[in-house]
Amino acid sequence: MATNVRPLNDKVLIERAKAEEKTKGGIILPDSSKEKPKEGKIVALGRGRLNTETGEWLPFQVKKGDKILFKSYAGTDVKIDGKDYILMSEEEILAVIE
Amino acid sequence: MATNVRPLNDKVLIERAKAEEKTKGGIILPDSSKEKPKEGKIVALGRGRLNTETGEWLPFQVKKGDKILFKSYAGTDVKIDGKDYILMSEEEILAVIE
Amino acid sequence: MATNVRPLNDKVLIERAKAEEKTKGGIILPDSSKEKPKEGKIVALGRGRLNTETGEWLPFQVKKGDKILFKSYAGTDVKIDGKDYILMSEEEILAVIE
Amino acid sequence: MATNVRPLNDKVLIERAKAEEKTKGGIILPDSSKEKPKEGKIVALGRGRLNTETGEWLPFQVKKGDKILFKSYAGTDVKIDGKDYILMSEEEILAVIE
Amino acid sequence: MATNVRPLNDKVLIERAKAEEKTKGGIILPDSSKEKPKEGKIVALGRGRLNTETGEWLPFQVKKGDKILFKSYAGTDVKIDGKDYILMSEEEILAVIE
Amino acid sequence: MATNVRPLNDKVLIERAKAEEKTKGGIILPDSSKEKPKEGKIVALGRGRLNTETGEWLPFQVKKGDKILFKSYAGTDVKIDGKDYILMSEEEILAVIE
Amino acid sequence: MATNVRPLNDKVLIERAKAEEKTKGGIILPDSSKEKPKEGKIVALGRGRLNTETGEWLPFQVKKGDKILFKSYAGTDVKIDGKDYILMSEEEILAVIE
Repeated sequence: MATNVRPLNDKVLIERAKAEEKTKGGIILPDSSKEKPKEGKIVALGRGRLNTETGEWLPFQVKKGDKILFKSYAGTDVKIDGKDYILMSEEEILAVIE
Repeated sequence: MATNVRPLNDKVLIERAKAEEKTKGGIILPDSSKEKPKEGKIVALGRGRLNTETGEWLPFQVKKGDKILFKSYAGTDVKIDGKDYILMSEEEILAVIE
Repeated sequence: MATNVRPLNDKVLIERAKAEEKTKGGIILPDSSKEKPKEGKIVALGRGRLNTETGEWLPFQVKKGDKILFKSYAGTDVKIDGKDYILMSEEEILAVIE
Repeated sequence: MATNVRPLNDKVLIERAKAEEKTKGGIILPDSSKEKPKEGKIVALGRGRLNTETGEWLPFQVKKGDKILFKSYAGTDVKIDGKDYILMSEEEILAVIE
Repeated sequence: MATNVRPLNDKVLIERAKAEEKTKGGIILPDSSKEKPKEGKIVALGRGRLNTETGEWLPFQVKKGDKILFKSYAGTDVKIDGKDYILMSEEEILAVIE
Repeated sequence: MATNVRPLNDKVLIERAKAEEKTKGGIILPDSSKEKPKEGKIVALGRGRLNTETGEWLPFQVKKGDKILFKSYAGTDVKIDGKDYILMSEEEILAVIE
Repeated sequence: MATNVRPLNDKVLIERAKAEEKTKGGIILPDSSKEKPKEGKIVALGRGRLNTETGEWLPFQVKKGDKILFKSYAGTDVKIDGKDYILMSEEEILAVIE
């Protein structure tokens, strides 16, 4: 399960929002032609960003459960138990949806 | 609504100005052939840029409501409630229109 | 009007010099085949370059009204009230014509 | 044997997880068309990352035996005694599977 | 005139040496097929390179009148009163011919 | 002879391991179709990496005679007395085979 | 003459070793198909590398007359009195042949 995945350092594990399955006109889209949304939910976080000079861990600006918007092509797609997730650095996150 | 979007750090949320719908000669342009204007209005701002050495947050040079000009291809296009916005770093903003 | 545009930080607003309308042989050139000159006049300036460590603003080496030469492909072309301008960083300016 | 390989500095030696040999539909895949998984097990580690200013060795966030997820195209593929391994920097590791 | 051009900071204005007009075999070359020489003469210099931390101006290693060799594709070609010049940073200059 | 070659700074001279001359099926491979192994032996080392701030030479993590694995496309191939060597920076070495 | 060329800063002037004129089989090669050797002799040196913080000049690890090996595609080819030379930074030199 995704709860078993512990991201390293400033990495976060994100569950990608589902792509729309129909066009506005109601046509059902095949998997390959759906545009992947740049939106997701934070499932797990690392320890933060390490300041290698002082040894301090800089805390995250986001937390578990946050619905977020992220950069196009951010992170690495991984499949955990058949489900799609993304692992990315916090700095690729653009905004939180409240 | 866009007011629910909280940009992170030095990110700003921008409502893009509408592209012109007609050519000078009066021909109505289809969506795909309109040049996207590099102009917009600031809708929301993050906390600023974090100086990781001192821990200080550097304030923004722009504020909510400012009409701005930005770099070509700046930021990430996002769709919020069916409306087009851009999330970009403050450093991609070039000027304020007063 | 261009006087309403306030460049940010180390940005300057430049009015591009007009491209030559005829070849040496006297042939009138259409807009698309004119080479854009790397020359212009400074119309507005930002506050300078911020030294993020000391908080000081480094002053500009150029001033309003200066006729300048700049790097090829420098800056971002913007249209203000139907007239063409360029917004660029001061470091893309190469020389002042006195 | 892979136990004879001593990675340098912040490098880790990883045994790549096996690619799936069948499609969901049960078709047996030839070697060349299997997608290489971004998953593996840490077999050996270097000394850590050297802080060249202080002379200290920063310790690893991962340890021998950890099952990990890593960036696409991370590291260098090497063949040791006919078996496939990857040598990569610790910073290319994204998460530990617990 | 080129004497009216004041380069900024670490920029230098260079008069490019003329390309050879004949091949070794005596064939006269058209303008477009002449290889541009990487050689020129310094016509004007800026103030030097600014050390933004100390506020000092680092002096030039070259002076007006120096015949120099420079990197391929260095600088920006500019036309001043119909004559070809190059504006480049001092660090693109490789050697002085004495 | 290769013993006459003194690498500079953090460079090491490496004798590349021989490419396999047969496929698993016993077919003899022509030179051009052999995959170059990412394995070799250290023949000579420079003085180390210079810390330009303190003036100290950081010592090597490898020594003469070490059998090593290195990054794909690392270094520069050189031919010394008709034999193939590679000159690379120590940081392109991934692991030592013990 | 090449002795009139004074390289700037950390640049060195190198006389490239001659390319082999025959293949092993004795076939005479035309100029265009000879592989340029990555070997040469140092003809002149600059003052060293300037440490812009302390104002010190870091000395060279090589000296005039040294036979050297350098990186593929290093430096800028220049022609001085009809003879081919290369101007490159010292850091592109890999080793000295003793």
